[in-house]
Amino acid sequence: MYLGDVAWPDLEDYFETESLALIPLGSTEQHGPHLPEATDHLIAEAFAREVAERTGYLCTPTITVGVSGHHRQFHGTMWVEPSVFREYVASLTRNLTYHGIDRVVYVNAHGGNVPHLREVGARLRQEEVAYGIEWMWDESIPDLVDDLFEQNGPHGGPKETAMIQYLDSALVHEDRLADARDGGMTSVDDAEMMRHGSRTFYDAADNTDNGVLGDQTDATAEKGEQLFDAATEQLVHLADWLADQAFEDLLPRDHV
Amino acid sequence: MYLGDVAWPDLEDYFETESLALIPLGSTEQHGPHLPEATDHLIAEAFAREVAERTGYLCTPTITVGVSGHHRQFHGTMWVEPSVFREYVASLTRNLTYHGIDRVVYVNAHGGNVPHLREVGARLRQEEVAYGIEWMWDESIPDLVDDLFEQNGPHGGPKETAMIQYLDSALVHEDRLADARDGGMTSVDDAEMMRHGSRTFYDAADNTDNGVLGDQTDATAEKGEQLFDAATEQLVHLADWLADQAFEDLLPRDHV
Amino acid sequence: MYLGDVAWPDLEDYFETESLALIPLGSTEQHGPHLPEATDHLIAEAFAREVAERTGYLCTPTITVGVSGHHRQFHGTMWVEPSVFREYVASLTRNLTYHGIDRVVYVNAHGGNVPHLREVGARLRQEEVAYGIEWMWDESIPDLVDDLFEQNGPHGGPKETAMIQYLDSALVHEDRLADARDGGMTSVDDAEMMRHGSRTFYDAADNTDNGVLGDQTDATAEKGEQLFDAATEQLVHLADWLADQAFEDLLPRDHV
Amino acid sequence: MYLGDVAWPDLEDYFETESLALIPLGSTEQHGPHLPEATDHLIAEAFAREVAERTGYLCTPTITVGVSGHHRQFHGTMWVEPSVFREYVASLTRNLTYHGIDRVVYVNAHGGNVPHLREVGARLRQEEVAYGIEWMWDESIPDLVDDLFEQNGPHGGPKETAMIQYLDSALVHEDRLADARDGGMTSVDDAEMMRHGSRTFYDAADNTDNGVLGDQTDATAEKGEQLFDAATEQLVHLADWLADQAFEDLLPRDHV
Amino acid sequence: MYLGDVAWPDLEDYFETESLALIPLGSTEQHGPHLPEATDHLIAEAFAREVAERTGYLCTPTITVGVSGHHRQFHGTMWVEPSVFREYVASLTRNLTYHGIDRVVYVNAHGGNVPHLREVGARLRQEEVAYGIEWMWDESIPDLVDDLFEQNGPHGGPKETAMIQYLDSALVHEDRLADARDGGMTSVDDAEMMRHGSRTFYDAADNTDNGVLGDQTDATAEKGEQLFDAATEQLVHLADWLADQAFEDLLPRDHV
Amino acid sequence: MYLGDVAWPDLEDYFETESLALIPLGSTEQHGPHLPEATDHLIAEAFAREVAERTGYLCTPTITVGVSGHHRQFHGTMWVEPSVFREYVASLTRNLTYHGIDRVVYVNAHGGNVPHLREVGARLRQEEVAYGIEWMWDESIPDLVDDLFEQNGPHGGPKETAMIQYLDSALVHEDRLADARDGGMTSVDDAEMMRHGSRTFYDAADNTDNGVLGDQTDATAEKGEQLFDAATEQLVHLADWLADQAFEDLLPRDHV
Repeated sequence: MYLGDVAWPDLEDYFETESLALIPLGSTEQHGPHLPEATDHLIAEAFAREVAERTGYLCTPTITVGVSGHHRQFHGTMWVEPSVFREYVASLTRNLTYHGIDRVVYVNAHGGNVPHLREVGARLRQEEVAYGIEWMWDESIPDLVDDLFEQNGPHGGPKETAMIQYLDSALVHEDRLADARDGGMTSVDDAEMMRHGSRTFYDAADNTDNGVLGDQTDATAEKGEQLFDAATEQLVHLADWLADQAFEDLLPRDHV
Repeated sequence: MYLGDVAWPDLEDYFETESLALIPLGSTEQHGPHLPEATDHLIAEAFAREVAERTGYLCTPTITVGVSGHHRQFHGTMWVEPSVFREYVASLTRNLTYHGIDRVVYVNAHGGNVPHLREVGARLRQEEVAYGIEWMWDESIPDLVDDLFEQNGPHGGPKETAMIQYLDSALVHEDRLADARDGGMTSVDDAEMMRHGSRTFYDAADNTDNGVLGDQTDATAEKGEQLFDAATEQLVHLADWLADQAFEDLLPRDHV
Repeated sequence: MYLGDVAWPDLEDYFETESLALIPLGSTEQHGPHLPEATDHLIAEAFAREVAERTGYLCTPTITVGVSGHHRQFHGTMWVEPSVFREYVASLTRNLTYHGIDRVVYVNAHGGNVPHLREVGARLRQEEVAYGIEWMWDESIPDLVDDLFEQNGPHGGPKETAMIQYLDSALVHEDRLADARDGGMTSVDDAEMMRHGSRTFYDAADNTDNGVLGDQTDATAEKGEQLFDAATEQLVHLADWLADQAFEDLLPRDHV
Repeated sequence: MYLGDVAWPDLEDYFETESLALIPLGSTEQHGPHLPEATDHLIAEAFAREVAERTGYLCTPTITVGVSGHHRQFHGTMWVEPSVFREYVASLTRNLTYHGIDRVVYVNAHGGNVPHLREVGARLRQEEVAYGIEWMWDESIPDLVDDLFEQNGPHGGPKETAMIQYLDSALVHEDRLADARDGGMTSVDDAEMMRHGSRTFYDAADNTDNGVLGDQTDATAEKGEQLFDAATEQLVHLADWLADQAFEDLLPRDHV
Repeated sequence: MYLGDVAWPDLEDYFETESLALIPLGSTEQHGPHLPEATDHLIAEAFAREVAERTGYLCTPTITVGVSGHHRQFHGTMWVEPSVFREYVASLTRNLTYHGIDRVVYVNAHGGNVPHLREVGARLRQEEVAYGIEWMWDESIPDLVDDLFEQNGPHGGPKETAMIQYLDSALVHEDRLADARDGGMTSVDDAEMMRHGSRTFYDAADNTDNGVLGDQTDATAEKGEQLFDAATEQLVHLADWLADQAFEDLLPRDHV
Repeated sequence: MYLGDVAWPDLEDYFETESLALIPLGSTEQHGPHLPEATDHLIAEAFAREVAERTGYLCTPTITVGVSGHHRQFHGTMWVEPSVFREYVASLTRNLTYHGIDRVVYVNAHGGNVPHLREVGARLRQEEVAYGIEWMWDESIPDLVDDLFEQNGPHGGPKETAMIQYLDSALVHEDRLADARDGGMTSVDDAEMMRHGSRTFYDAADNTDNGVLGDQTDATAEKGEQLFDAATEQLVHLADWLADQAFEDLLPRDHV
């Protein structure tokens, strides 16, 4: 069920019987010359809505702007400071508990949000307010992602390209896929990312000229569909597992 | 132009020639038994997207959750604390200036956000970071709003009902309009809102049983269309006026 | 009873039997060429002290500096940032509850403080710490205010002028009343305050040359007395009503 | 000149020629059975106003509530948290600089405020915003204070008693002076304040039953007048010295 | 050079010619039944001091308590909240720049600090205050670490054991190594750390009974020495590389 | 017992039977031409470790950087902002309570930390989280300190010199003691520290050229040992006293 579409009296049943919410969030940031800035939050929203529809779990509206300061050099990237993002997500989650929600899945499609969602989740759990966990679609199907693409760059690469080809093909500039590859960094291994054990870069612009990594040319909508179906299934399992837990089992363990 | 749909190289021209952005924001909160929780942000997004399309000004993704703690008693209302909302909007706006944006219109459809957007706007202007102003669609066409409806409640009333009837009729429970009226507070004048000069209530639940005010039964999609067209025109004018100003003329005046 | 004058043992009875406090607050800010900078807090203090004397309710010392950044262009205006003001009032109120106070009236005479006092009041109520409400004297007697003056500007206008004429006539420059009118903005309707539905100004200096609105020339001490008596009566009623409530009836309602 | 009494155009000359402000601040807190809760801020205000009158320097309205949490056990003590106090004073001072003030004397009569005013002063100086220093009247005339009284307790003792006897004798309960002494702690030396080098107490209530220290019975209005005159003279000197400095000489020294 | 040992005049030369500092930091937290709570900060300190001695770069005192809330269930674990840790490191780093330092290596030996040090580093770089990077010894020699041990658990495992055996063997309970292995989680692969793509655990206690992972029984002081030498060499290279950069080359790139 | 050296299972007994921790903290800041920057935290650590050894009470690792911004003009001084220091200490203390600690002694050797430790202690006590008190070694033996030295400057003077001579003589530049005296301020009485009752200086550099006060030439390791033994004894007494109290007796008293 998508919360945004529903009138309040029609939510009463849900909150009486369920305590889980799916919160989609991503980013609005450059995704290379071929993909739209909304890429991450479109993907997150697609997963969360699909799973909500299949399972009946509640899905909230999408948080569209996240922690993307490391993409700032490219036109149009939007972001909030990390501390602001954390407070926004924490406040929003905490307030959902007013209706009886006590566990959430942050359906996330932006790597830059991950440590911040983990920090929020740890804090809310410690305070016994809610148990929130972060889910990244590609982390749920690592083998399939590896199988489908030659050079599977972590940002704006073929996996995200295929996903948008499948979800909203009009937003993909098919004629720029080779440019995306050639103007970016094809293989992560080639990047001078680590220096003597230290990650010495901070921004996407430190490593790539066009903001993306990977070889986008073997992305197709069909592969996108495969990815979407496989990861959706994983999220369904995760949501079901989470819904089945007793709240006290989700809380921190006692001191030894 | 909708920022979310565009790849970053295609934004270069805009940022070279323009410095204005439209930021839609609303709320996700109860709107009575007849309207969806997304009502406010749907309306805001519709206006911002429409004007962006007509004028070419940049429209960002929508901030869907705002300051709605005063609706918390009704299922599904989402909110963040006022200070969190302000920091989120301020950070997001401040970071947009990195690309050359120096003026924004907060295309807002939720009264509860107004003082907070004003506070953010005043701060950013004072710091000479950006000039941001808040726009509420119904404030731009007060006479038309008054003409069209008998009892024009400020929340979940006929003006918002008509707007959703026009924008996405499937989301309106037409069969509950009379219930909405009868279970709520038809006339604001009847409400005991002020006591000896003091507003002694804080929450929607203090005044109404179902969360809404006004008489929804004379709302129609046709009236919604009228409202939408008239207010869109106002927003176009506002954006054009704003784009025409020299930035220094938008900044605070000098000390006398 | 005025708290500042009393030794601590003499407050014991009050805190045993009563739980209400009146907290006067205003601003120290420009009020045109004819009125002193203390205008707002003098008025607030006068009301709070008068009502405390008539009723016996406790009145605290006055918070003299508030949210007045929008008057900064005029010599002498003092202010704190909105967030600082909120924290100051919230902390002060919260700590009063240590003695048994659980309800306060913010006896306010400065419009710029209103949304901030409302925000503080909402937060403290939500946390079930205290129930605090904001009272503006002129909001309690709107008809009388309208009756007495031709052009009743909201800042530095005849209603505030009359009040200071009555409370402390030596502080009014009677010989500048016409100047005040002519150098300011006589009618609010003439001001270009709203543009296509948006309030595009932020500072008093954006609209007026001398910082005030209205026609001050028909202000008199007699009218000031009328206003004072009438609004005092309203505040007495408000305080009595508030004192009569059970604390639990002042708290937020339960979730539907 | 007292800022509160003046209309803004009449401040122009001052800000053109001077850059110093006196900011009185104290506390509203228990001062034993014989003195009013306003004791500290009445004293601070009296000094600041007197010096402003004698010298022409600008005096602002008084900050009446400070850091007094350590007196909370006694009825009527008001306080804000230390961090809130610091932000309030810092924001207020910072904003005064908008008019050209760049140096302030915090005319303080409450020991509990001292470290916080020092912290604010250090911060503003380091940021080269303003140079603010804290002044306590009794610190300026330590010998006279010692000479006049047998047991000169630091809180609610004879020096403060004499001062209020002089400034507003109606507020002193003369008939309770012996009680104040007998119910409190006559000699600080008797108090078990330090334990093996550590101050193990935090609150006034940890040491005294009625909240005060010293022997109040030898306080008189005449002694109060002596104290007032002598300390006023010191503050005049301090203000003159401060006004004479070049601003750059008040700023932090360069790195060695 | 170790800053703590030096008198201030003897630092002048360094600050005139160099601008790099090594800041060791770790944690004080449980490291299983066999290792001391200081393990992480002892290791960090050893590397930073050794490199400072070999190269002459400045080494500061050690920050001994970090982000370790996820080990709280085990006796003695100390920690500060993530936001507090970030502010402490940021403030400390920012203030070092007062002496001319503009680049630092956070010589870190605790994984839980990593995202927070990255966040601080990104912020300070963005503000063009300093360029700070995080270095973890084991990240600099991944192949050697893999070669030396069978089951190289990430916390309290053989690599940390070997390091303390080498650095301060008296602190290792050699007789508990097998217990450490058997009571913990030998292989990370066995842990149910990821569930359908989501990391569903937060605390060490969620996964292990004694707080550690890996097989500690093949750790030796000799291996510790090998690790120490190899990683020290890496840190020397990193420091040299960093010292050689022009500051402007370390700052964020320009907008495309 | 020193927490850093112990494996977690070996702390169980302590936390079952005791609830006190000693937390050493000082500064890393200039101490004149003759003493190392670590002076304060070395001293603090020495006392805390010695007492822990003698008594068995738990000693934590040392907080090496404190509030030292007032020494910033001298090379190498490190510091964090006061608010950051307070939060760090408060968070660290609060989290210790998770293991059963409810009382701590901040074994402090830096005057600049004192008001901040008092503020933290007051807050934690008020919240009934923990009872923390600050201890300065020289405050515990004022007579002995006075007896041993002619000119006992408060910073970098003979008492600190003697202490480091005793604790780690290699760190003292014996050949610079006369220089330290001559280049600094021998007698505090000579300093123009107070002006008409106001402390008009903020930084050490405002008063001294080399950062120190006092006559260092009569410091000896033997005197250092005397001081160390005497103050250690005091700290033992304090810790024993503190350990003997019932927690409720350490909490704030009730409202009168």
